[in-house]
Amino acid sequence: MTRDPHPWAAGLSSMHAQVWNCLVRGVHDRRAPARHPALATVTPNGLPRVRTVVLRSVDRLAAKLEIHTDLNSAKVSELRATPFAALHLWDEAGHLQIRLEAEAVILSGPEVAEIWARVPDTSRLSYGIAPQPGQHIAGALDYSRKPDPTSFAVLRLKVTAIDVLHLGPDHRRAKFIRCDDWAGQWLAP
Amino acid sequence: MTRDPHPWAAGLSSMHAQVWNCLVRGVHDRRAPARHPALATVTPNGLPRVRTVVLRSVDRLAAKLEIHTDLNSAKVSELRATPFAALHLWDEAGHLQIRLEAEAVILSGPEVAEIWARVPDTSRLSYGIAPQPGQHIAGALDYSRKPDPTSFAVLRLKVTAIDVLHLGPDHRRAKFIRCDDWAGQWLAP
Repeated sequence: MTRDPHPWAAGLSSMHAQVWNCLVRGVHDRRAPARHPALATVTPNGLPRVRTVVLRSVDRLAAKLEIHTDLNSAKVSELRATPFAALHLWDEAGHLQIRLEAEAVILSGPEVAEIWARVPDTSRLSYGIAPQPGQHIAGALDYSRKPDPTSFAVLRLKVTAIDVLHLGPDHRRAKFIRCDDWAGQWLAP
Repeated sequence: MTRDPHPWAAGLSSMHAQVWNCLVRGVHDRRAPARHPALATVTPNGLPRVRTVVLRSVDRLAAKLEIHTDLNSAKVSELRATPFAALHLWDEAGHLQIRLEAEAVILSGPEVAEIWARVPDTSRLSYGIAPQPGQHIAGALDYSRKPDPTSFAVLRLKVTAIDVLHLGPDHRRAKFIRCDDWAGQWLAP
């Protein structure tokens, strides 16, 4: 008999634990699938947007995540208008799609000074692009990069719901919500 | 001197062509990154949602894409309320992030009969899950799958804008929009 490679998919609590194992791995392993989730937001006009982000920190007990971004990026304006985000990732090894719903808080200035102090020099180059991200430029390289702590923002995402789909020999889908303390509920896939 | 592995990133028209090469490959190669883009939508309450979809068809000249889904899935309700979608994919080999904005039309019933006729039997099992996708079930496998053409929907996505980010030794970002015939514009990354 073949050993089940994903025994955690059989139960709600083990499925939930697997989601957080996967997220935590994303912070520590640059090659883990949760390192680069897709972050979806809504524009002030009510349109969907989605882009890759880097997962920087996971607080498993509080169910909170952190992402770093340029304070002048479109995602920050979008989250100012609609402070809700959706995160998506596909873990190929686990055959697992993880979808998160979250409330977003945008932190910048003095409240992120401690985090900025720990950002490596090479990474700091991503904050302080001139002209600002998304502005028109004549040539592809007509921009400069100078680390600027006033351009640095941390998105703190308070996860409110998790929708997980396991595509094993059977398909199993579960939803976990903060307001029932993540007890979990199976859903038709 | 090392040969540039991504010479197409140097110019707007070659960058644009590369996007479509990548999308077309997604339809024909199950392992290509564009096979499984993330599709973002907006709920009737104005919240973002994002999930994996399978790219089924690409019309490069018309800049249209097709995705198949269950007519009873949340994404269909969301697109009925806000008929705009964003698609996202990351092409690791090309170090290329592709983001598409699109208008979505939901087709079903007689208008998709010809497409349904070409869907393989195993794929048809994805349309006609009972209870409907997302409904609560007591056990993980308390659902049945019976192909049902009335549950089959095609999302036809008319691409209106493409935002491309190439993360080579230099970062290059370009935006292409339908209304100027995809001429393209460099953006600060």
